[in-house]
Amino acid sequence: MRIGIVFFPTVGPADKPATTYFDEALRLVDLADELGFDHVKMVEHYFFPYGGYSPDPITFLAAAAGRTRRVRLGTSATIPAFTHPVKLAGKLAMLDNISGGRVDAAFGRAFLPEEFAAFGVPMDESRDRFVEGVEAVKLLWTRENAVFEGRFSRFGPVTLLPRVVQRPHPPVFVTTARAVESVAAAAAAGHHLQTVPNAMTVPELAERIAVFRAEWARAGHAGPGQIHLTYPCVVSEDRAAALRQGRHDEERNTAAIGAAVRSWKDTRSSAYPGYEKLADIGARDAFDEKVADGKLLVGTPEDVLARLEALAGRFGDDVTLSLGVHSGHLPYGTAETTLRLVAERILPKMDGASA
Amino acid sequence: MRIGIVFFPTVGPADKPATTYFDEALRLVDLADELGFDHVKMVEHYFFPYGGYSPDPITFLAAAAGRTRRVRLGTSATIPAFTHPVKLAGKLAMLDNISGGRVDAAFGRAFLPEEFAAFGVPMDESRDRFVEGVEAVKLLWTRENAVFEGRFSRFGPVTLLPRVVQRPHPPVFVTTARAVESVAAAAAAGHHLQTVPNAMTVPELAERIAVFRAEWARAGHAGPGQIHLTYPCVVSEDRAAALRQGRHDEERNTAAIGAAVRSWKDTRSSAYPGYEKLADIGARDAFDEKVADGKLLVGTPEDVLARLEALAGRFGDDVTLSLGVHSGHLPYGTAETTLRLVAERILPKMDGASA
Repeated sequence: MRIGIVFFPTVGPADKPATTYFDEALRLVDLADELGFDHVKMVEHYFFPYGGYSPDPITFLAAAAGRTRRVRLGTSATIPAFTHPVKLAGKLAMLDNISGGRVDAAFGRAFLPEEFAAFGVPMDESRDRFVEGVEAVKLLWTRENAVFEGRFSRFGPVTLLPRVVQRPHPPVFVTTARAVESVAAAAAAGHHLQTVPNAMTVPELAERIAVFRAEWARAGHAGPGQIHLTYPCVVSEDRAAALRQGRHDEERNTAAIGAAVRSWKDTRSSAYPGYEKLADIGARDAFDEKVADGKLLVGTPEDVLARLEALAGRFGDDVTLSLGVHSGHLPYGTAETTLRLVAERILPKMDGASA
Repeated sequence: MRIGIVFFPTVGPADKPATTYFDEALRLVDLADELGFDHVKMVEHYFFPYGGYSPDPITFLAAAAGRTRRVRLGTSATIPAFTHPVKLAGKLAMLDNISGGRVDAAFGRAFLPEEFAAFGVPMDESRDRFVEGVEAVKLLWTRENAVFEGRFSRFGPVTLLPRVVQRPHPPVFVTTARAVESVAAAAAAGHHLQTVPNAMTVPELAERIAVFRAEWARAGHAGPGQIHLTYPCVVSEDRAAALRQGRHDEERNTAAIGAAVRSWKDTRSSAYPGYEKLADIGARDAFDEKVADGKLLVGTPEDVLARLEALAGRFGDDVTLSLGVHSGHLPYGTAETTLRLVAERILPKMDGASA
């Protein structure tokens, strides 16, 4: 089981200045590189405290690339609908070169109405734009004199510079919050999977992992399909402190997503069936239940070790975990403690685990 | 006179792998930060060895931000026509936060037909898209609940995150290769100026500097208008070696721009009068003439000191120079030597100079 960290800031200027947030996040990047964590990731969102400090994850990852030697660098995700494929392929290729081939490129559809509105992109086109954008980026990475005739962009013959370091191209992931058909489509296309257990029930997660593996095997892709699961994580020697901090963090994260999805109350899109229910998020306190279900990794090193062993038992020890350790609502030291305890007290006790 | 460096790679995969180029460039960034140079800059271009290693200068500058503490970070330039203003304002704001307020944001119109074609943007709209894009970015930086109703983008009310560190916003520059009206418009709008002496005669440069200063004063902007001039630069204790290296570099740079502008032979745009003449670039060897005219800073520390004193005498010692020290065609050590000699042997002898 490989373990890395994912940054999903849910703070705004009233909570923590962005200079402080990025300074702390980059110190955690250094620590992750030093302690041997597998990867660091950053999200793409706009306008709301819910991820809005990072409208361009590649900018953050480039800063991380410039000061690390080993850790992999992942988008989580970046949104093809909001950037022309020539620009998106180009900056990911620059990052792949600057980092010496450490890019994991995860792409997503996005789901916040205000983001689509600001870019002038109809939500109903989100799946088509996603599929076409990923196809165009991969073409630019793999072909010289590439010609693309899409619905949303047309170009060529052009040869993208710089050429990517990883061949045939950086690993491509699809980040999906819920839709089973997106999971199946990702596997069929040979794209790896990133998903968020916190956004579904445990049986729903198990179903998606099973569908991904079955479709990946059916398509006969070379090598194993990667499954990356995101878990908020607070580890402390003091269980009560971990639970208190974890609860505060979960409350603030839930409030942040609640504010960001509020407009779903009045939004309907054929591309997002059922998303109007998102507007109810945060209606009840589900912290204890989520800890019990293993959707939040919160507790002592022994508690979290037991959770990870249960996860490995249920989903296989070839899944990769991305720990959400720094939403910005807890002090920097809490995140540093979590990273150190995971690296020093948990991973050495797991078979086949590496951080 | 403040002095920094500008990166304008003119190499392709056959000349130098991009991993090597970026590794060398970032070592020079470290050195520039350590030696006290004013800034590092990176260009935006696509597809051709002429700048094509950097389709997204902000990605490079973020890598530089992550490993430096002091040096300013400039685009040279970035192109609003190729990126949605929400994305462009957002990633520059991230860079401003990650770097603790070190961003100089220079914007340009672009001028290569293949770049416009790939993005599906008509060249004839380039000036309108430039003006509107800069206006939208500044609005997003300075206003909460910003509403923008442009011809090419419409959004709001939205509040961009993260908020910029520098208030009211990072210094805005206009990068212009030739057009006097662009110089006048920049000054009238309160935008600083970046330009390339190598692309015009000495009297033409003097005229543009005079126009900029006159229009800046007429508009009554607070503070002085900055003028940044780009000069290719090779300094060596051995004059013959400097000239040999400088000539090679100039030849390769001229060949690179020649290849990139070849399609101007068959291109006409009302927004680019006279650009069809660009197709003749490189028809003759002008190296000695350019050195004599002070358009290339090549020679011993004493030679280049004399050139800089002449520049300061002619244009004022409040101009800022950006030295092009690493096109990629000369060995890394040549650029390092140039930086060290400029910092240690030239600047201490100039009144009011700082690197």
